[in-house]
Amino acid sequence: MDYTLVQKEIQFALHNSKDPQQLFDLVYSLRPYDISEVMKGLSPEDQIDLISKLPIPTAAETLEYLEPEMQYHILRHLKDSVASPLLKQISSDAVVDMLLAIHPLQAQRLLDLLPEDYRDKINQLMTYPEYTAGSLMTVDYISARAHWNGEQALQHIRKVGHEAEIISYIYVTDIRGELVGICSLKEIILASPDTRLGDIATKDIISVPADMEQEEVANILSRYDFYALPVVDHQNRLIGIITVDDVVDVIQEEATEDFQKMGGSSPLSEPYFKTSIWELFRKRILWLLVLFIGGAYTANVLEKFSDTLSKIVELSFFIPLLTGTGGNTASQIVTTLVRALGMGEVKFQDLFRVIRKELLTGILLGLSLGMIMYLRAMMMGVNTNIGWVVSISILVIVLWSSLVSAVLPLLLHRLRVDPAVVSNPLITTLVDGTGLIIYFTTAKLLLHL
Amino acid sequence: MDYTLVQKEIQFALHNSKDPQQLFDLVYSLRPYDISEVMKGLSPEDQIDLISKLPIPTAAETLEYLEPEMQYHILRHLKDSVASPLLKQISSDAVVDMLLAIHPLQAQRLLDLLPEDYRDKINQLMTYPEYTAGSLMTVDYISARAHWNGEQALQHIRKVGHEAEIISYIYVTDIRGELVGICSLKEIILASPDTRLGDIATKDIISVPADMEQEEVANILSRYDFYALPVVDHQNRLIGIITVDDVVDVIQEEATEDFQKMGGSSPLSEPYFKTSIWELFRKRILWLLVLFIGGAYTANVLEKFSDTLSKIVELSFFIPLLTGTGGNTASQIVTTLVRALGMGEVKFQDLFRVIRKELLTGILLGLSLGMIMYLRAMMMGVNTNIGWVVSISILVIVLWSSLVSAVLPLLLHRLRVDPAVVSNPLITTLVDGTGLIIYFTTAKLLLHL
Repeated sequence: MDYTLVQKEIQFALHNSKDPQQLFDLVYSLRPYDISEVMKGLSPEDQIDLISKLPIPTAAETLEYLEPEMQYHILRHLKDSVASPLLKQISSDAVVDMLLAIHPLQAQRLLDLLPEDYRDKINQLMTYPEYTAGSLMTVDYISARAHWNGEQALQHIRKVGHEAEIISYIYVTDIRGELVGICSLKEIILASPDTRLGDIATKDIISVPADMEQEEVANILSRYDFYALPVVDHQNRLIGIITVDDVVDVIQEEATEDFQKMGGSSPLSEPYFKTSIWELFRKRILWLLVLFIGGAYTANVLEKFSDTLSKIVELSFFIPLLTGTGGNTASQIVTTLVRALGMGEVKFQDLFRVIRKELLTGILLGLSLGMIMYLRAMMMGVNTNIGWVVSISILVIVLWSSLVSAVLPLLLHRLRVDPAVVSNPLITTLVDGTGLIIYFTTAKLLLHL
Repeated sequence: MDYTLVQKEIQFALHNSKDPQQLFDLVYSLRPYDISEVMKGLSPEDQIDLISKLPIPTAAETLEYLEPEMQYHILRHLKDSVASPLLKQISSDAVVDMLLAIHPLQAQRLLDLLPEDYRDKINQLMTYPEYTAGSLMTVDYISARAHWNGEQALQHIRKVGHEAEIISYIYVTDIRGELVGICSLKEIILASPDTRLGDIATKDIISVPADMEQEEVANILSRYDFYALPVVDHQNRLIGIITVDDVVDVIQEEATEDFQKMGGSSPLSEPYFKTSIWELFRKRILWLLVLFIGGAYTANVLEKFSDTLSKIVELSFFIPLLTGTGGNTASQIVTTLVRALGMGEVKFQDLFRVIRKELLTGILLGLSLGMIMYLRAMMMGVNTNIGWVVSISILVIVLWSSLVSAVLPLLLHRLRVDPAVVSNPLITTLVDGTGLIIYFTTAKLLLHL
């Protein structure tokens, strides 16, 4: 969608028109996401003007798509009588994200706009650490009592539904706030109006604690195809819900992060074009240096074998091919395992199954590549013995790479380190030097050097 | 969750108990996903027995979590009077997935169980190619007319809602089936019962064509935080909807595939432990061979420079470090760009911006690494001139790797090839040989060999 034209029209309507209908018509056909995209191109004054002229629910949703600084700037410059209901309408997880991103004093100013009980809730939400269930949840859910019937529940939804983020589920709590059942709105509507919620609610509830890691939350929600998940405290009291749209964002973000880590750079916190060259440099140089230092010993290995090398210079021809193949095998295994660990398919307890599987596959791969390596060496017209050296080396290198790449990700996961730090470049660097040692040791043994 | 105990109890209830209540109590506390996990450990006879004793909606949802072969086996062995309503209750996208996975003759047998109009719909759905919007959509949505009021809409939902996959949105169509508006159930419930749907429905609809790629569908749905997206034909007639749970699966699958591709192996179609060693071998050897052939020319390059090498054997010490660093830089860039292309953040039109950004970052990285490389060479006590050769080479290699890795993913995306085929191993292999040429050419020029 191209926003240039509609942006011009909106600017015109804001500046020149005395007829509010004109602006209304323009904005009416846009979704909050689209309005937020248009907003990004407007002057600060126009941004504030536009938000103040939107219906509160639309304005709130539009604000949710903007960056925290812009959200704060707009809210700060609206009259309190506008800012206060607007802030209250924004879903609580978005409010928390904004408040945590801006300066604490600025956050306090905004908090003062909220009624006291809601302010307490927000303050409570702000205590949950990033990347946990607590940080994803919203308190804008609908709860009900087990003795209500369907008709009463619908009346309740009509009363409080405006503020709820999702009305697909109604959470049944007891007098102590404990979560005792979940009804879907579908069940309520399909049942007869006088059925008690207690009779249609699912009693065996899947809920998550506030300190669960967001990746695990995403796995649970996607496994059961839920639209929302309840979050409970240690006493099983309902404290919030996590909706599927936030989980979709989590899944996308986590995949992007793992991707960038696997490529051997620290994950970018912004989209590509928003990241400055200096920032790209900073994110990349760190790992390049680690890898450089890790790889620097290859030079010592080669220096140590320089006698062998100067006696048979042909041995050097195969260095990149041998280390390269070892690195390629390692990359294949590491990426597969890192992803499988992330998706919860593989656990540390599976270590020996994984090693067995990878070594057996490694034997097949090593034998195939060994044969081809022999043919390649013969094609170059080198001595038959060198042919044997390279083909036996490649088998041993593939097996060694398989073992290292099978163990390392699982071990790191066990130690609660993100296994994605074993990036493709890291594992390649690790098996490069050891591959050289295998190669030259084989050469010395077989060629009696 | 450990299913061993409940599985034993269910087996006992199926075999020994005459009291159906016992089985009911056991299954009542389980969700369809959990029942499907229990099913996987049961004998084929018990599977059929259990499914036939579940309420139809639960049985249908449980079946959806099973593999196509198992689904077919169970449906085939149920009485037609049970299988027919059960098959009709399964959501249409799941039915299509199953029918496409089993033998056409088996599929025909199942299709014969369906009423004619529904069979036609399923046959139509089966024509959409894999990985498109059409293949993800279900026809189990709720449509309504613009002149209905809220009360009529709710009555309609009560009547047909049992078969709908999601009731959060009601799709308003005109007499020709054209999609003219969308109401959320929330809006209907919050509005007064006599409000016409036409007055509350969003008219400016975001819909997707049936042939849109699933990755793009996922991007749209996650951008707008929708729970479902309507799919229309070329005449804007509503033909189905795509629900967010299927999109979550798509996002997870696409990320897993891209992950495995980036690691340099063909994506696995099954979870890790379900993939046999032979299958792992097949998925990996293909790319290893491609990479081997791609890398084999490094041996020729080194052979060509063997004169230089035998004159100054120290030059060989730095081969793995130089090619390694080139490969690492390339991996960082390629993973970032492949992900950014997948998320729609970067397009082919941005080519020159990307090249400029990567070359400028490359200069910073190359200069830093060049300095460190010089120090490293000096530490090993090699000739100062060799120090200059290696540090100038690393700068040129980093710049060259940056250029290649900036251009290649964008070019492939433009040519409608998945850019993830430029895996980390592939780009590493590509820049390995060219890195050697850069290195030895620099050596020859600077050392006057």
